[in-house]
Amino acid sequence: MTVSYTKDVVSNKGLGCFLKLLLRWRGSVYKLIWMDLLVYLTFYFALSFVYRFALNDYGKHLFEQVSLTCSRHAENIPLSFVLGFFVSLVVGRWWDQFRAIPWPDTLALFVSTSLAGNDRRGRMMRRTILRYINFSMSFTFSMISPIVKRRFPTLAHFEDAGFITGNERQIYSRMSERTPHTLYWMPMAWAGALVCRARKENRIKDDIAMKTIIDEITRLRSRCGSLLGYDAINIPLVYTQVVTWAVYAFFIMNLMGRQFLDPSKGYEKFPIDYYFPVFTTLQFCFYMGWLKVAESLINPFGDDDDDFEMNFLVDRNLQVI
Amino acid sequence: MTVSYTKDVVSNKGLGCFLKLLLRWRGSVYKLIWMDLLVYLTFYFALSFVYRFALNDYGKHLFEQVSLTCSRHAENIPLSFVLGFFVSLVVGRWWDQFRAIPWPDTLALFVSTSLAGNDRRGRMMRRTILRYINFSMSFTFSMISPIVKRRFPTLAHFEDAGFITGNERQIYSRMSERTPHTLYWMPMAWAGALVCRARKENRIKDDIAMKTIIDEITRLRSRCGSLLGYDAINIPLVYTQVVTWAVYAFFIMNLMGRQFLDPSKGYEKFPIDYYFPVFTTLQFCFYMGWLKVAESLINPFGDDDDDFEMNFLVDRNLQVI
Amino acid sequence: MTVSYTKDVVSNKGLGCFLKLLLRWRGSVYKLIWMDLLVYLTFYFALSFVYRFALNDYGKHLFEQVSLTCSRHAENIPLSFVLGFFVSLVVGRWWDQFRAIPWPDTLALFVSTSLAGNDRRGRMMRRTILRYINFSMSFTFSMISPIVKRRFPTLAHFEDAGFITGNERQIYSRMSERTPHTLYWMPMAWAGALVCRARKENRIKDDIAMKTIIDEITRLRSRCGSLLGYDAINIPLVYTQVVTWAVYAFFIMNLMGRQFLDPSKGYEKFPIDYYFPVFTTLQFCFYMGWLKVAESLINPFGDDDDDFEMNFLVDRNLQVI
Amino acid sequence: MTVSYTKDVVSNKGLGCFLKLLLRWRGSVYKLIWMDLLVYLTFYFALSFVYRFALNDYGKHLFEQVSLTCSRHAENIPLSFVLGFFVSLVVGRWWDQFRAIPWPDTLALFVSTSLAGNDRRGRMMRRTILRYINFSMSFTFSMISPIVKRRFPTLAHFEDAGFITGNERQIYSRMSERTPHTLYWMPMAWAGALVCRARKENRIKDDIAMKTIIDEITRLRSRCGSLLGYDAINIPLVYTQVVTWAVYAFFIMNLMGRQFLDPSKGYEKFPIDYYFPVFTTLQFCFYMGWLKVAESLINPFGDDDDDFEMNFLVDRNLQVI
Amino acid sequence: MTVSYTKDVVSNKGLGCFLKLLLRWRGSVYKLIWMDLLVYLTFYFALSFVYRFALNDYGKHLFEQVSLTCSRHAENIPLSFVLGFFVSLVVGRWWDQFRAIPWPDTLALFVSTSLAGNDRRGRMMRRTILRYINFSMSFTFSMISPIVKRRFPTLAHFEDAGFITGNERQIYSRMSERTPHTLYWMPMAWAGALVCRARKENRIKDDIAMKTIIDEITRLRSRCGSLLGYDAINIPLVYTQVVTWAVYAFFIMNLMGRQFLDPSKGYEKFPIDYYFPVFTTLQFCFYMGWLKVAESLINPFGDDDDDFEMNFLVDRNLQVI
Repeated sequence: MTVSYTKDVVSNKGLGCFLKLLLRWRGSVYKLIWMDLLVYLTFYFALSFVYRFALNDYGKHLFEQVSLTCSRHAENIPLSFVLGFFVSLVVGRWWDQFRAIPWPDTLALFVSTSLAGNDRRGRMMRRTILRYINFSMSFTFSMISPIVKRRFPTLAHFEDAGFITGNERQIYSRMSERTPHTLYWMPMAWAGALVCRARKENRIKDDIAMKTIIDEITRLRSRCGSLLGYDAINIPLVYTQVVTWAVYAFFIMNLMGRQFLDPSKGYEKFPIDYYFPVFTTLQFCFYMGWLKVAESLINPFGDDDDDFEMNFLVDRNLQVI
Repeated sequence: MTVSYTKDVVSNKGLGCFLKLLLRWRGSVYKLIWMDLLVYLTFYFALSFVYRFALNDYGKHLFEQVSLTCSRHAENIPLSFVLGFFVSLVVGRWWDQFRAIPWPDTLALFVSTSLAGNDRRGRMMRRTILRYINFSMSFTFSMISPIVKRRFPTLAHFEDAGFITGNERQIYSRMSERTPHTLYWMPMAWAGALVCRARKENRIKDDIAMKTIIDEITRLRSRCGSLLGYDAINIPLVYTQVVTWAVYAFFIMNLMGRQFLDPSKGYEKFPIDYYFPVFTTLQFCFYMGWLKVAESLINPFGDDDDDFEMNFLVDRNLQVI
Repeated sequence: MTVSYTKDVVSNKGLGCFLKLLLRWRGSVYKLIWMDLLVYLTFYFALSFVYRFALNDYGKHLFEQVSLTCSRHAENIPLSFVLGFFVSLVVGRWWDQFRAIPWPDTLALFVSTSLAGNDRRGRMMRRTILRYINFSMSFTFSMISPIVKRRFPTLAHFEDAGFITGNERQIYSRMSERTPHTLYWMPMAWAGALVCRARKENRIKDDIAMKTIIDEITRLRSRCGSLLGYDAINIPLVYTQVVTWAVYAFFIMNLMGRQFLDPSKGYEKFPIDYYFPVFTTLQFCFYMGWLKVAESLINPFGDDDDDFEMNFLVDRNLQVI
Repeated sequence: MTVSYTKDVVSNKGLGCFLKLLLRWRGSVYKLIWMDLLVYLTFYFALSFVYRFALNDYGKHLFEQVSLTCSRHAENIPLSFVLGFFVSLVVGRWWDQFRAIPWPDTLALFVSTSLAGNDRRGRMMRRTILRYINFSMSFTFSMISPIVKRRFPTLAHFEDAGFITGNERQIYSRMSERTPHTLYWMPMAWAGALVCRARKENRIKDDIAMKTIIDEITRLRSRCGSLLGYDAINIPLVYTQVVTWAVYAFFIMNLMGRQFLDPSKGYEKFPIDYYFPVFTTLQFCFYMGWLKVAESLINPFGDDDDDFEMNFLVDRNLQVI
Repeated sequence: MTVSYTKDVVSNKGLGCFLKLLLRWRGSVYKLIWMDLLVYLTFYFALSFVYRFALNDYGKHLFEQVSLTCSRHAENIPLSFVLGFFVSLVVGRWWDQFRAIPWPDTLALFVSTSLAGNDRRGRMMRRTILRYINFSMSFTFSMISPIVKRRFPTLAHFEDAGFITGNERQIYSRMSERTPHTLYWMPMAWAGALVCRARKENRIKDDIAMKTIIDEITRLRSRCGSLLGYDAINIPLVYTQVVTWAVYAFFIMNLMGRQFLDPSKGYEKFPIDYYFPVFTTLQFCFYMGWLKVAESLINPFGDDDDDFEMNFLVDRNLQVI
């Protein structure tokens, strides 16, 4: 479920509204990086232990030289740039995906105002159209979100939930077997055909109303297609790899480069020995946290704390319609 | 209320129009950070006092070494990048939210030109449609803005203000109890139904006019939905935390790192003792002010000086319609 | 009037087309910053004079230490970042505002092709509709642009220019007194009502043509509303202040930090004494000029060299329609 | 085929979902740069060999000086900026191109719901309209994608695949010969004419349905035009050259600048001799990988691992329609 | 003519597809900067000559100090930032302008499908409407592109090319004389009037078809207006000047700052004398090339190698229609 903190940042009084956000756990940076940090510090202290107790003088000297080189070169990696541009891209796509999510409300309004008739057949038609749309959308969600997939692993589950009838399921299955291409849009075509029939039976009074409904159906379809597009074509792997690589290379170098060297040897960077790498930890939280922003948002239909709750949406659509 | 300074920057003559903006208090950076600055300086001088009077020579030496380390590492935090990208994102969302605010004017024009009839029922219909829309919008505002919420804490308050009748309120309450989902759009559906009836009674003369009105209603609804979307899905908490964390870590390090060390010891950075940290204060104002930009704008429906005035909008809509 | 140089940059031959742009005065950076530079240099030389002639040795020493500290800390202000992001934002809004300016041409075409009748009443109707629109737009311009305001300080001036009749002005005034909200859109509503009447009199032959005209009127209105939105909600004051503050702080520090210190004392940064701060002047022109870009564009409806010429537009609309 | 990794980044648990992406080969940065790296290291070790074994003392001294200069100047090239801005631009265009790809689904829905008649002629008309559209689109794809071109090198191949009849091919060829301009849109005009005829034969019942179909055809055409526009007008060559030049200049300088100089000579940068340039290799992977992102995406219709699969699309359209 | 290299970057194999782009001349960075570089090197060597042969010891000392100061301050100019943001802006506008170019194809399709009648008058009407549109567009092109202007310097040339008849030219001229405002849109109004007449003569069968045509005409007009807007309102001069100024100031400083000083004097930066400023030349190519990107694209309707070919478009439109 998306972690909402909007209500906490309503007013920017006193010491600022962001300060209290630092204490949250759900959806927080701490929750995302504590394990990475643990692993990192383990390696760090292992190396530290080796330096302090296991090496002889020559070994220590070598260690120190390597540490200095690592330290110098780590600074050459422009992490902030790469992360800045990459996270901008990811956040932009994340929000575009949110806005691409289809909502059936408008169609429901159109259908209820334009498709007249309070007899059984009229009500049936209205309900069936919306059911088809709902099925198409939920099926799309199940293709992009593993959570919805877990809930509806097969068409049978959709049938149980009332999205399709057994009859429709069989037709759909048979069609699916004949083509390698996804048929998420087919129920929408069925809905379109039903609208046509309603127009012919004069339950939809005029051509404009029919066009309005058909337009809305195609709009919903193009949104489903959009979501599938975002799912199929992610940010190119090579970009993601380059960024990940940069962050990990930076911290691997710093494993050595940030070791506290013997202060008595007078290396400029290490006047005293802190034992615990306070500053490196801070920097780790910062950069790794920034990368975790990208990791969380690159696929917003999963089960991270900050992912969109598609199951909630499926339920809502079932109820509202 | 939004602080408007547009009229002050009309003309860029003399020493520039931004200079005089520095003297403002309402909505200013000074108003936002004076308390933070006070707290910061208190800690700073406490540490300074300890260094100058409380520590012995060895303590002073340790203090100095810690100070030097802090100073060096604070410079490694790329605050300007992080804040630059983050504030860009926040400002972008802030403006998008402003543009998503629905205005009922166009609908009012459509209704008055297309829904004919100067008899009582005609006038009643026009007024009721707009009243429904207005209620939906104001109710949406009350969901996203705590200020509007304070004004209309319950449905009864909406009834008192004339947005709904007692009868409608009961229906609305009953429906709300049955579902965990918000029903902000229901009065809009009522308005749609009313438009249909007006068409059937031939008060709306043609299908195109009806389509125009229905389209506008759905447009308003999608804007309300948009606002609720911005409210529910804020910038992911982890991003906000990372940025906040970076700023605070920077200044906590600088609490030590910017202490004036004994000039007689010849640390390169501290040739003379200023007692008051002029430059650190300036830097604090700058970076903390930049963060405050984000804090102010991340939820623009609160009661910050720079937030959108939703109550004003509610009043206007009541009057104009 | 906007300074156009498009024709000068048609072809990128020889030493490049930007070189000759450096020689321009109207709308130039020189015109915008010469006064700031003068003030700056005055202070600079005053300080320089004090250092060279008024201070004793101890005073000089203090001066030098302060100068070195200022110099070091000024470099910590990431001016280029802040200005880069801020100017991007301002330029984006500036262009959005240009594109939001409403043009009545399309409406004029629609009215002339769809509202038939060459009799007196037909011509009158066409002219009145456009006159109303024109008034609404010009009135909006007078609200956002002090230049148009100077031309039309009161409604009487609009009447004199032929935008409204005396009768209409009285109605408009009376309505305005009753509400604190702006009524810029009212003449557009009048125009809408007139279109309705024309439809009823069958001067507009079909519903589609009427819808087209009404749609265009609402589009113009929403653009006027857009312009007023940009006027009311500027970039938050706190952001503008932070940026301005950063630039001024930078140059105030540099007043001291860029003083030429006695070369004989061997401060690394000051091997020889140039007397005139050539490089500081260059840097001043550069950063201050960048800030001036923002100052010029933040309100593009004023009377800067580069502001949009709204009076020209008012004249054009009067003629073209 | 696009390399999809969306399913691997569903959940951000444990050590983060990006870590496992580093192990992929298809579409990876390793696959793209291993050859560059090999060439680079060959040159590097050749120079290293010369320095270590072939040069006399004076030669070594010269080599060292050149190396130091190269090292210093290479750092002046702001690679991260240039690449950051350029890759942003390329990625933006890449996604815009993906979204510009036309899909015939909506048209198919419109045609099947609006063009009535289950007789032979009715079915023929529907199929022919879609066939024309499909041909236009596939022909456009063959113009921008060398892969589709390889599959359909001549019109005869399109005829074999059933996109056009022999008769149509002859007409199309004859028209093409008369003009130097591309005629990709002509079959769409044929489809439009066919829609007209269907309207006249009253197979399309009303004007609105016909308008809907014609609008969709023009929308598809403008998308094809869009794709051709992206193909004809790429990012200006000069920009691409500047960026490429910067990256190569950087690494050519570093060929010298990152040589390990004799540690006994005490050059600050080279305390010990690593023999293998670990850090330079890392940096090479990073910057060169970033450039490869741009190289991969600048023309997304080729046969890189990450390019859009147009042949797949051609097949799908043939089947679905 | 736009330099297309899309086909060269289809596949990213081997050492990368950008490498071969470096060898191109047309539209290349070399072609754009060779003259600047020549001038730059001339000045550089003149100064170098003075330093080496013309100055006495004291002169040399002064020269060296100035050189060191220049070198230090040149590094303070954040060229990469300024150019990064500015070029982003210019490239954004350049592409927006490309997309704003109007294409008459859709209108041609609408006219041919909706305006019936194979008699002489029917054909005449269709042709005249498109001729008017074509004239409006070509006239607009002649206003923004000096190349098209050279081809059609007067209205008489348009008449010769068959865009207008002599009669129409006279009307157009007479109207133009009466107003200082451009009348590019007038032939479009004529086209609109002709469409109206065709509707009245029942050659256009229904209101919807007429609306479609009129809508498309207004869309073309608004695109022409868009292009003229881009032409009239360029990026504010002050911004362009600031950027240009920054680049030139940087290289003027480097004229001195990058001189090779006598190595025997032991200035840290100049261990050996290269005689030819290799690195400065590289840097010059890079930064100046980046600026040239902006110079080339700021007015894309000129005759640079990379400008849009408007004459080609004029020819195409004449043929296609």
